[in-house]
Amino acid sequence: MLIIAERINATRSRIARALRQRDAAVIAREARVQTEAGASYIDVNAGAVPAREIEDLEWAVGIVRQSTDLPLCIDSPNPAVLRRGLELLKGGPAMINSVTGEAAKMKAVLPLAAEFGCLLVALAMDDRGLPETAQKRVEIASKIVKAAEAHGVERARIYLDPCIQPLSTSPAQAEAVRAAVGEIMRALPGVHTTCGLSNISFGLPDRALLNRTYLACLIAAGLDSAIVDPTAEGIMDTVRAAEALAGRDEYCMEYIRALRSRPT
Amino acid sequence: MLIIAERINATRSRIARALRQRDAAVIAREARVQTEAGASYIDVNAGAVPAREIEDLEWAVGIVRQSTDLPLCIDSPNPAVLRRGLELLKGGPAMINSVTGEAAKMKAVLPLAAEFGCLLVALAMDDRGLPETAQKRVEIASKIVKAAEAHGVERARIYLDPCIQPLSTSPAQAEAVRAAVGEIMRALPGVHTTCGLSNISFGLPDRALLNRTYLACLIAAGLDSAIVDPTAEGIMDTVRAAEALAGRDEYCMEYIRALRSRPT
Repeated sequence: MLIIAERINATRSRIARALRQRDAAVIAREARVQTEAGASYIDVNAGAVPAREIEDLEWAVGIVRQSTDLPLCIDSPNPAVLRRGLELLKGGPAMINSVTGEAAKMKAVLPLAAEFGCLLVALAMDDRGLPETAQKRVEIASKIVKAAEAHGVERARIYLDPCIQPLSTSPAQAEAVRAAVGEIMRALPGVHTTCGLSNISFGLPDRALLNRTYLACLIAAGLDSAIVDPTAEGIMDTVRAAEALAGRDEYCMEYIRALRSRPT
Repeated sequence: MLIIAERINATRSRIARALRQRDAAVIAREARVQTEAGASYIDVNAGAVPAREIEDLEWAVGIVRQSTDLPLCIDSPNPAVLRRGLELLKGGPAMINSVTGEAAKMKAVLPLAAEFGCLLVALAMDDRGLPETAQKRVEIASKIVKAAEAHGVERARIYLDPCIQPLSTSPAQAEAVRAAVGEIMRALPGVHTTCGLSNISFGLPDRALLNRTYLACLIAAGLDSAIVDPTAEGIMDTVRAAEALAGRDEYCMEYIRALRSRPT
């Protein structure tokens, strides 16, 4: 399970402030606690002020690299920002968050994934917007994979995100996304699936409970990555348990090991 | 979601001792805490000493009925014990735990379910033993439903239990049972599914974590009942969250209500 740790994101006021004030301690601590919690990649989104995004990203990437040995996931809607981030990480593993099925986006981002040999989060949405059904999500996912492969980005590097919608406003979408995960994994063997998990609980109480419960259901459906806060209550425990239940943890060794090393 | 509360079971040493010593306070407290936690039925298994099971059951049923307004689930492998329990509950709702697909068992128990008009847990196992695959479970479930309907027990009263095996010893069975739940619900529309949940975690650490994580996956697959300890950490929270995610809780009203009334 590839855990993309989401806490260093400029949409959080605490992170936006740290970027503005060049408060390295805040960024460094976020990198460390997510590493200790079990992250695989540290997502870095420095888009607090678009005009300053490149310089803010340069600074934040520097702090994160000093604070953890984990690879980074460069998170921006701006291809120029993605390129700068990837240049900073050149020579090591990296991830892009994200491409979509929009024509302009694929044209700008897929060559970056090819050039830098990195992993790639791909949102199952396109120029027609967000899909309503599992089937539409599979269609968009197939389109992105086909375009990526044409650019030389093999599907094993692609993490398809079926675009979770809030349960509070789109109740039927929870099942549609769960079905989409299963169908994408069957229709496109070798590809990965991920998700921006916390969208599911937007506007509802006890978000951590809904997030981890939904994550269990998605892992059972085949999900093998998630964009999450690995420090959130119960989330990494749920990952270990759900992976064992899905038959991806022989003799439950990882489950048992993780519980043993858990702070008590 | 029909919650069959499992704590009053003579296989627990605390309950066996209470039966032996006629310690009504222990039984009454178990009935009350499970009621407060959100049980639908209180399971009563008094089989500590086979030769004394009927008198122990009579005593325990009396205590439980004084302690809660919930209906009871009479739990015994012995049809004579089941009959005595159902006679005690005559005139009110009741449940039998359990019948199986074994010929002798069906012959003894299905007429009781017909005579007393009660609900019925049916284990998907038969004279050939425990099934290995989802398909075998569906076949046994279909056989039981057919026999039950021939006895006048409509399928809406039947709660099929696909027989969870311990993850520690039978890792592939977790997925087989999850698949069986989905296939039984599709193949036998109108029937219910339940499970003795805690079997999944036998022999592993943090059993409550594995139990609630697996329950989330099973509810997503269609499970609409469970035999559980409703006082176990996080189990009822998981039920509320998983039901909302499965689209069975309009506007998440039950989820929000349950969280509001939760002790803090």
